Amino acid sequence: VVKRGVVRVVTPGTAIDSSMFSDASNNYLMAVAGREVGKSGKSGEKEMEFGISFLDISTGEFLTTQFTDSENFDKLLSELARMHPAECILPPSLYGNSELTGRLREQTIVQEFTPEVFGIEDAGEKLKTHFGVATLEGMGCEKLEFAVYSAWAALEYAKTTQMRDLSHINTLRTYSNTEFMVLDSITLRNLEIVKNVRDEGDENSLYRTLNCTKTPMGNRTLKKWLLKPLLSVEKINLRLNAVEELAEDSLLRYDIRDWLSDVRDIERLVGRIVYGNASARDLVALKKSLDVVPPLRDSLLEKARFEMLKEIAEGLASFSELEELAEMIEIAIVDEPPISVREGGMIKPGYSAELDEFRDISSNSKQWIAAFQQKERERSGIKSLKVGYNKVFGYYIEVTHANSSQVPEDYIRKQTMANAERFFTPELKEKESLILTANEKAVALEYEIFAEITRTLSARSRELQETAERIGTLDVLASLAEAAENNNYTRPQLTEDCKILIRDGRHPVVESTVSGGFVPNDTEMDCKENQFLLVTGPNMAGKSTYMRQTALVAIMAQVGSFVPASYASVGIIDQVFTRIGAFDDLASGQSTFMVEMVELANILNNASPKSLVLLDEIGRGTSTYDGYSIAKAVVEFLHNRGKVGVRALFATHYHQLTALEEKLKRLKNYHIAVKEDGHELVFLRKIVSGATDRSYGIHVARLAGVPEKVIGRANEILKELERENVLEEAEE
Amino acid sequence: VVKRGVVRVVTPGTAIDSSMFSDASNNYLMAVAGREVGKSGKSGEKEMEFGISFLDISTGEFLTTQFTDSENFDKLLSELARMHPAECILPPSLYGNSELTGRLREQTIVQEFTPEVFGIEDAGEKLKTHFGVATLEGMGCEKLEFAVYSAWAALEYAKTTQMRDLSHINTLRTYSNTEFMVLDSITLRNLEIVKNVRDEGDENSLYRTLNCTKTPMGNRTLKKWLLKPLLSVEKINLRLNAVEELAEDSLLRYDIRDWLSDVRDIERLVGRIVYGNASARDLVALKKSLDVVPPLRDSLLEKARFEMLKEIAEGLASFSELEELAEMIEIAIVDEPPISVREGGMIKPGYSAELDEFRDISSNSKQWIAAFQQKERERSGIKSLKVGYNKVFGYYIEVTHANSSQVPEDYIRKQTMANAERFFTPELKEKESLILTANEKAVALEYEIFAEITRTLSARSRELQETAERIGTLDVLASLAEAAENNNYTRPQLTEDCKILIRDGRHPVVESTVSGGFVPNDTEMDCKENQFLLVTGPNMAGKSTYMRQTALVAIMAQVGSFVPASYASVGIIDQVFTRIGAFDDLASGQSTFMVEMVELANILNNASPKSLVLLDEIGRGTSTYDGYSIAKAVVEFLHNRGKVGVRALFATHYHQLTALEEKLKRLKNYHIAVKEDGHELVFLRKIVSGATDRSYGIHVARLAGVPEKVIGRANEILKELERENVLEEAEE
Repeated sequence: VVKRGVVRVVTPGTAIDSSMFSDASNNYLMAVAGREVGKSGKSGEKEMEFGISFLDISTGEFLTTQFTDSENFDKLLSELARMHPAECILPPSLYGNSELTGRLREQTIVQEFTPEVFGIEDAGEKLKTHFGVATLEGMGCEKLEFAVYSAWAALEYAKTTQMRDLSHINTLRTYSNTEFMVLDSITLRNLEIVKNVRDEGDENSLYRTLNCTKTPMGNRTLKKWLLKPLLSVEKINLRLNAVEELAEDSLLRYDIRDWLSDVRDIERLVGRIVYGNASARDLVALKKSLDVVPPLRDSLLEKARFEMLKEIAEGLASFSELEELAEMIEIAIVDEPPISVREGGMIKPGYSAELDEFRDISSNSKQWIAAFQQKERERSGIKSLKVGYNKVFGYYIEVTHANSSQVPEDYIRKQTMANAERFFTPELKEKESLILTANEKAVALEYEIFAEITRTLSARSRELQETAERIGTLDVLASLAEAAENNNYTRPQLTEDCKILIRDGRHPVVESTVSGGFVPNDTEMDCKENQFLLVTGPNMAGKSTYMRQTALVAIMAQVGSFVPASYASVGIIDQVFTRIGAFDDLASGQSTFMVEMVELANILNNASPKSLVLLDEIGRGTSTYDGYSIAKAVVEFLHNRGKVGVRALFATHYHQLTALEEKLKRLKNYHIAVKEDGHELVFLRKIVSGATDRSYGIHVARLAGVPEKVIGRANEILKELERENVLEEAEE
Repeated sequence: VVKRGVVRVVTPGTAIDSSMFSDASNNYLMAVAGREVGKSGKSGEKEMEFGISFLDISTGEFLTTQFTDSENFDKLLSELARMHPAECILPPSLYGNSELTGRLREQTIVQEFTPEVFGIEDAGEKLKTHFGVATLEGMGCEKLEFAVYSAWAALEYAKTTQMRDLSHINTLRTYSNTEFMVLDSITLRNLEIVKNVRDEGDENSLYRTLNCTKTPMGNRTLKKWLLKPLLSVEKINLRLNAVEELAEDSLLRYDIRDWLSDVRDIERLVGRIVYGNASARDLVALKKSLDVVPPLRDSLLEKARFEMLKEIAEGLASFSELEELAEMIEIAIVDEPPISVREGGMIKPGYSAELDEFRDISSNSKQWIAAFQQKERERSGIKSLKVGYNKVFGYYIEVTHANSSQVPEDYIRKQTMANAERFFTPELKEKESLILTANEKAVALEYEIFAEITRTLSARSRELQETAERIGTLDVLASLAEAAENNNYTRPQLTEDCKILIRDGRHPVVESTVSGGFVPNDTEMDCKENQFLLVTGPNMAGKSTYMRQTALVAIMAQVGSFVPASYASVGIIDQVFTRIGAFDDLASGQSTFMVEMVELANILNNASPKSLVLLDEIGRGTSTYDGYSIAKAVVEFLHNRGKVGVRALFATHYHQLTALEEKLKRLKNYHIAVKEDGHELVFLRKIVSGATDRSYGIHVARLAGVPEKVIGRANEILKELERENVLEEAEE
């Protein structure tokens, strides 16, 4: 008796019979996970954090991503439109959102699915088990909780409906869909974009090299641009046009940067004004910052030729109350006000008649007291009689003990000192009260005036912040122009193809620190014959610097900066991947090689035809044969990835890999030239086409003082190996 | 016409004709450089810093060393006696020292030689040029200025007399002649003896693991012992006997450690006493520390069986005044004195009659004042009359305004307050002066007594310091015993041969931090069949830990500590050399490989038959062929060094090196066992005899998430390579 049961459930997203869908396109199951994550600062709108996955069980293709979306689900819906899934599954929490479900249903079939998974961590563990991996880092989604959750939901739904093994789904690719080049934390570190590796400071970083900004807004904006280079040729050219204009018109640039020197941190000043903890000094700083806007604006309105500078000028001009607000501060607040807003001294005379009157009373008191003292001296006949003041007792009349007999009867004793006695009269006390009250009232009125001014400014906080933003952008553009002029950079060309052509490229940071002049090098990459550059050469010769400078020139170009080269053309890069350097960590116990492999896996899983990959010494952390096998398989994989391959710079000590040039048509060999000069090795630091003949390791050993006997024997062994040329022939 | 000239000068130290000297021994030229470096702390004797070199131009052997010597040149003369040079050259500065020259002349021929060298730096440069190296680090004498100077003088003298090329002199060996095992800074770092690599703190260091000391002296002494393990089996056994005794007699150990808990930093306390900046609290601390000596001493005198503990007991007993000094402090100083020594309150009542009298006056004042107040109340009839004191005006009589009419006539007004007036009488002022003077005098007398006591203690500073030293030594011995008991260590055997036998050895630090239990391993080394252990195995399997634990067990044994093993026998090691781990330093620009080679060169040049060498992944930093060639040449060199070879642990990824077992008779292959369990790699962490068959690099890549396609291809390539087994056969 055979027990019958459901063998398979066919759903639109999990169909595998080709009859059910076109061969020309994928048949995706889409899974969504997500949560509301609070409101965005500016608009006050709700924000959603979504993880979505697309699984094609017919091909095994499996993609995931995670992003922040608006409350209208703009990005989610555009991904849906782009990918055309046959079916979309949602967890109950999202399925209950009728607006979301409704919008999704316009384009696809929507199902509720309750995966039996207890929390995100569990999903990650189950995915790892499925793929037989120790970490999801190699797939690039270890830290994307909703991406992981959606991927697991998709896989589980497929399993539930298919009721069979899904082992052909053996990899998961994390992609990101943005308008910016992706620079992950590893790449930011390896290329030292905003921090150096040594102490995490900004010395020797690209940021420090390019930073000629004059304002805090400019400084912050430059950092943002460097962390998020653009992908749109058009938008990059807008920036480059502005930079070029400012680079060429050095008078205009000089003026702008001179004006910007007077600008304080408007963003933070306005922040303090809005949150009610600004001081009068902050208002003066704001006023001084606003003072430079009119000349800046007028100068730009007159001279700017290109769109971006024009837009900045027009934007600045659109804030019509700007001069009014600056004048308001100018009229009201003294030039150097005190720190405290509760002790007076902030408001200029002439601003408020009432305040002036209070102040009169207060300041005339000196005169009155002098007159009173004179009067009392005459009345009592005591020439040494003095009127004084202290905080505890207020005003008093002081008479020395010697004169105490002459004290008028109406004096009231207040205090006896060693040499004198202190008295007061009702008249003095009355005046005292008037003086002190006037002071108090003046201080209170000053604060009221100050608060009124900050309220007026607060009401214009949006325009003020926009002005700050425009000044920041202008500052970065002027800074990039200044850096371009100072460092002899040239304007790069940006293209939609995949060529990278650099003539006389330099490493922007190293060129300024290296002694004896930096040796420029060319780079020539495309998707045909020069897609994969295999670089060999001895240690210390500059392989790493060369690879890094190529990536840095491309990143600078996409930031909108001029670049250190005599000519550069960059085909837009969507992500720079790097696997460089080994950082042994004895204490943590994690093997260098595992780290290397996880970083490599991430690259292999996620690099696209538009990416640029830098790989340094892949496979060095394991045995020779293993490492060589992995390195060779990686070269072949990247070269052939998705049939069109990936642009890559690959430095290696496995010189035998250079033989691949014969077999892989888009791979080219390069090496760094070295001259032997007697005992010395001279590193020419020039990249040269073709494979290198020697690695000079034994030479370095000799320079380090390794005994001659060892050197001689090592050379013998090497000659044997080279005669046999074993690794290279192994596969012939 | 042939111009005749001197072709060669024959001197005793530069002879090369074998007829001139015996074949059985070297014919050394000795060169000395040096300078007086000030006086030693204890003896007040002058100290000399000497660099000496021995050059045998017949064989090319060239040795150098540097050391600090006494004003009697003890070490210099013992080196002279040991090496029997045929000739000794001195620079003019030393040649002029007739005592030195006289002593040298008793044993060899002494010549003055003025090398034309301008300073030490020049000598270093000339040596580098001669050897064709970029640094002298690889020879181990980069920082030994006198050694370098003497080496260059020897070479120059040889050149001057030989008038020909001396290129056969191609290496310089730095040796050190001491009673301690040499642990250089690289080895201290790699083995984490007193600091960890991660943050240079002492966490996870051997020092932290072993430190159960109770006193600051013990703490410092333990560190010193760890930095300087002993070479003499006899001296080590003295320590081990004491440790064993204390480990076995846990009651005695418990008592000793309990007493030691009360001991403060006697060394520093005595230092402050001698330099005159001790406080009375320091004396109390010293007294409390000294109090534990008698019970400690008596207990040891009664129970100690072995020499070292007996010596400590007798040493402590030899300080006969100890109890007297403690009693002196006890009698004089109060239990909790103030910090200041100038404000009184330090000396106990009854110690000085004069002091007691001054104090009486001062303390009786309260009574007197109370009586005075009562008397004045009665006299004036003012019940609220009070006698008070303040710092500015001294003692006063206070009467409220309400009672001012009743104030007696002899009262003198001093101050008027809000509610009262203050007065004094001549009687009150007189008493005041007496009270205040008595106080001053008491304070001055207290300081005098305190100073007298510190003078008495100062006169016994030598005995006190010796006591501190003995307590420190006892503390370390008890600490080692405690650590041995807590961690289940066993007593090692020390031998003069070159065997290292460890059963169930553990890494003392890792065993306490690893979760899931540490897997013990055996080590078996000798100078016959097991001198050179070649260790293969995958990453993360524990090769490094195994190598380190072997060295650490040996170091602990020579320190006099019990060791983490079930049995251990260690043939005395004169120096542990390590070359482990790569620390890429992108910023400094120095290549990892150059660093690796310099460290390697130092090992190859300086390892002796009594050394232990740990080498991890030599050659990884250069190309495959180069690296393999260097690694293989290094194995051969160390195996055959000085015909007897060097004990070494050599971990490598070049699995092909395991074939050397066939050729090198003292080399043995080992690997670390790994079990494959489906997708998982299980590291058994057990060292096993024989070569490993796999390195699992590709397996790790799979675990890291490298795509299946790459893994599959890498396996294919690997199989090809293994089939050809190319590196191994290259030389057949």
